[in-house]
Amino acid sequence: MRKSIATVSVSGTLVEKLEAIAAAGFDGVEIFENDLLACPLPPEEVRARAADLGLGIDLYQPFRDFEGVPAEVLAGNLRRAEHKFRVMERLGADLLLVCSNVSPAAIGGDELAAEQLRLLAERAAAHGIRIAYEALAWGRHVNEYLHAWRIARLADHPGLGVCLDSFHILSRGSDPIGIEAIPGEKIFFLQLADAPLLAMDVLQWSRHYRCFPGQGNFDLAGLVESVRRAGYVGPLSLEVFNDVFRQASAERTALDGMRSLIALEQGAHERGAYERGAHERGAHEQGAHEVTHPAVPAGFAFAELADTGAVGGMLAALGFARTGTHPTKPVELWEQGGARLLLNATGADPALIAIGLDSPDPAGAAKHAESLLSPILPRERTSEEARLEAVAAPDGTEIFFCDDAWLADFVPSGPVPGPVTGIDHVALAQPWHHFDEAALFYRSVLGLRPQESLELPDPYGLLRSKAMSGPDGAVRVVVNIAQVGADHLPWQHVALACDDVVAVARRLRREHPGLLLPIPGNYYDDLEARHEVDPGLRDLGVLYDRDEHGAFLHVYTVTVGRVFFEIVQRIGGYQGYGAGNAPIRLAVQHAAGH
Amino acid sequence: MRKSIATVSVSGTLVEKLEAIAAAGFDGVEIFENDLLACPLPPEEVRARAADLGLGIDLYQPFRDFEGVPAEVLAGNLRRAEHKFRVMERLGADLLLVCSNVSPAAIGGDELAAEQLRLLAERAAAHGIRIAYEALAWGRHVNEYLHAWRIARLADHPGLGVCLDSFHILSRGSDPIGIEAIPGEKIFFLQLADAPLLAMDVLQWSRHYRCFPGQGNFDLAGLVESVRRAGYVGPLSLEVFNDVFRQASAERTALDGMRSLIALEQGAHERGAYERGAHERGAHEQGAHEVTHPAVPAGFAFAELADTGAVGGMLAALGFARTGTHPTKPVELWEQGGARLLLNATGADPALIAIGLDSPDPAGAAKHAESLLSPILPRERTSEEARLEAVAAPDGTEIFFCDDAWLADFVPSGPVPGPVTGIDHVALAQPWHHFDEAALFYRSVLGLRPQESLELPDPYGLLRSKAMSGPDGAVRVVVNIAQVGADHLPWQHVALACDDVVAVARRLRREHPGLLLPIPGNYYDDLEARHEVDPGLRDLGVLYDRDEHGAFLHVYTVTVGRVFFEIVQRIGGYQGYGAGNAPIRLAVQHAAGH
Repeated sequence: MRKSIATVSVSGTLVEKLEAIAAAGFDGVEIFENDLLACPLPPEEVRARAADLGLGIDLYQPFRDFEGVPAEVLAGNLRRAEHKFRVMERLGADLLLVCSNVSPAAIGGDELAAEQLRLLAERAAAHGIRIAYEALAWGRHVNEYLHAWRIARLADHPGLGVCLDSFHILSRGSDPIGIEAIPGEKIFFLQLADAPLLAMDVLQWSRHYRCFPGQGNFDLAGLVESVRRAGYVGPLSLEVFNDVFRQASAERTALDGMRSLIALEQGAHERGAYERGAHERGAHEQGAHEVTHPAVPAGFAFAELADTGAVGGMLAALGFARTGTHPTKPVELWEQGGARLLLNATGADPALIAIGLDSPDPAGAAKHAESLLSPILPRERTSEEARLEAVAAPDGTEIFFCDDAWLADFVPSGPVPGPVTGIDHVALAQPWHHFDEAALFYRSVLGLRPQESLELPDPYGLLRSKAMSGPDGAVRVVVNIAQVGADHLPWQHVALACDDVVAVARRLRREHPGLLLPIPGNYYDDLEARHEVDPGLRDLGVLYDRDEHGAFLHVYTVTVGRVFFEIVQRIGGYQGYGAGNAPIRLAVQHAAGH
Repeated sequence: MRKSIATVSVSGTLVEKLEAIAAAGFDGVEIFENDLLACPLPPEEVRARAADLGLGIDLYQPFRDFEGVPAEVLAGNLRRAEHKFRVMERLGADLLLVCSNVSPAAIGGDELAAEQLRLLAERAAAHGIRIAYEALAWGRHVNEYLHAWRIARLADHPGLGVCLDSFHILSRGSDPIGIEAIPGEKIFFLQLADAPLLAMDVLQWSRHYRCFPGQGNFDLAGLVESVRRAGYVGPLSLEVFNDVFRQASAERTALDGMRSLIALEQGAHERGAYERGAHERGAHEQGAHEVTHPAVPAGFAFAELADTGAVGGMLAALGFARTGTHPTKPVELWEQGGARLLLNATGADPALIAIGLDSPDPAGAAKHAESLLSPILPRERTSEEARLEAVAAPDGTEIFFCDDAWLADFVPSGPVPGPVTGIDHVALAQPWHHFDEAALFYRSVLGLRPQESLELPDPYGLLRSKAMSGPDGAVRVVVNIAQVGADHLPWQHVALACDDVVAVARRLRREHPGLLLPIPGNYYDDLEARHEVDPGLRDLGVLYDRDEHGAFLHVYTVTVGRVFFEIVQRIGGYQGYGAGNAPIRLAVQHAAGH
């Protein structure tokens, strides 16, 4: 489908916006009126600039507070509209968005609104312009999309249809399946925005917290499927008001918007196919919303860290051993049980720099990532080396899609026994202005499912933390984001799974004092008030959490460079990450001067 | 009254918090439990550290989900409480905050809650501890402060009283006058927080947007007056959860908190005296809420700009003339009509660096500012020079309190005729993390009244703008704040009043092309759709706004360094600042590369 975006969705002057939007591959734009008003170019030149960039002007918006008014107000509103029609002619735009009236002057009444909108459509038609009528979620008399459609049908003018905006529909909890009651040719335009679920005034929610499809909590694939079933053939257009996007790079935001539409199309398509199949089978099974990605990983192949020696020393203390060396790169393989870590002597300070994922189809996964505009990383390799497909995550971490071949490069010396069974999860650090981009990347490119976002108090600000996981928890990624405005990144870490954290902690506290983070006694005073726990946890500095499925024991190492390790034990079906203990960890890390 | 603050209100580790709080002059602290849990020091050492710093531990908080539960839950809750009593004994804290139960396990019922709280108070008394019961605004069964008092009275135990929290009372719209129904000795603690009025979930509002008294919209003076009338003699204690404070300097935040309590005490005292007086006179006049400040300015004496020559050139073009020179400093006086500007050859790039205010009592104003912890600026002067009292605003701008004597230093050559009649307003630029501090400074130190905050879309992010004005608009100050996370400051400007902007614009466009900011034709296409305006405005690039009181005409100069000038004409009783036109200005300024 044709892809558009409202100019308000990205930062910059109008010309900068158009350039960034064209560079991201969009077909068209909605011109947001305020962007035009502040632009020194006359409408004719904006039109020419857009045409030169290959962008159509799909919509001019918004025209406010028109319908359902007393006769004496109507004359002034029509006069306003005539001015806008002339601007649109100069701009070469033939579709005007009319939002439902929010003015106290509106008296409402469907027949009155229909009559006045028909009049507007007639006037517009004289300029070759059509009217798309939209119900704002906070409209005074009209705030439901089916109500807008009722009025448009009553008006019965070929130049009058509706504009559907996913935010206005889903923020009110309206069911989008009703869209299928609207003939496709009367849906003149479709605006898409996702949003996190927030309990706040809907107008403020709309103006500050919208985000691109797949970055929030709305089921946009379902809405798009209903729009498609209705027979709509117009553009998918993004209209996002977002405080962070307003100050971010226009190029990066526009590209991310395009990625969201491609992912939505892929998802909507697959979902649609699935649902149609399910319908033909006469069943509507649980799981109809699942979309299979060729990239969904089956587990962690490895985690790769930059090292100057300190990480290797820590791994040795943790019971890892070096089992191989890359033939041509300064990279070592360290193993214990099922966990494999690569140490890369790049010269940089210790940090987590790459993740290898076990992929059922590495080439397919890379192709999928590329279709979602993820940069494929160039790899230097000799003809003997394994071919590795890699893409860059939004924070720059390299993501490798692996089959077993990569291991052969290292000629590993054999298994290293030990209590560590594998990598439980990795925690990456995200700059605050790339939070939404990261959420979309892990969801769409890797097919991980987002879990709840958490806020963790750090001594110097809140952290936001979002966990994402693949099927059966085989791959778990936690993205930690510094508070908006923070000038430092959170730490990264690799969490190693084991079956007996207490035994591991006992050995490490004895043999390597100072390796594990000290945990304050005050923490245990509280823990023992809340739960009946083994007093040995206090002596060994082991942290504890539980949820309705089971329990969690964990310890942290001290930090080297930007990174530390965690050793975790999941008991029963515990699903979390010990987030309740993270503030304790953060305070101790800060106090230790890390 | 004794002054306290909860440790959660400032950033840092617990020890850093205590140090900052002591340095700001507080008498005591509420220990927020999570701060203790994450602290490596045992409670005895925290107690000693606080004592060394001269801080009492006035409250330990919070203890959650205790009352109104089935018998089988009660046993566990009492066990939890015994653990906390032991911690409090080690800490030397004798007052525990118990929040009303939010757990789904709570079954409610006033008699049950009272019975269980009485039992808790009995157990606590054995440790020399008292219980302060508080209604959370989102409590499951108890969410009104009078309901908490009803239960505490029913429990009837000398060791059980209520804790009042201004946020929980005022966020629900409850009337604080009911506090006067509570005997003062049963009010065990008073927590104060202000907040901006936000239409959002009350829990999120409470956890992220609280601020210090005077920084938000609540009438805290009225609440404190009711608490005082009830006979409460305990501390005024700040309990503020604020995302910005969490990442700001603890020292600066603690000092600002202390300033808010001093201002509240001054205001509450004056208000109380006034109301008591009014009551004795048998009248309750309009204006009872007005508090007179010795610092309230009667007008602008001058604005002072750093200059390297460009500002002087611009002033000459605007019709100003140099009328005097300071005898010992590189400062020139420029005048036109009633407007006086000082140009200071500091060597720095052009910027607004100081404001002189006509003060009825300069020494009293400075003393008032000093009582509110504003730094008094040292002034070098010879014995012949006028004595000038100055304080630093939060953004570093110097604020001078002037009588007429300052002018004599310059021996001005005489009046300069011209259309400019004076300074209409000045617009200062504030870093985003000092927004609340600035609001409190201008309100408490200068006695200006805050007007509504606005959000202005800039091409690269939103600006927040807050106007504050003195009586009759004699002094108007606009504080512009960059969007949270922005790494640049907004521009500053001086707005000059005149009686005929069109004439001024005509002369300047003709004689000094390039001096005034060009305004896009698209702006006028829209303006003419909205209003019947003189087409001459378009030709001269004059901007237009209107409100219910009158109209506003204005033009902007281009920017030099960090600063520009605006020339404004108020017609009728127009009260605003043309904020609707600011986005046009911002876009043109950015496009011009300023």
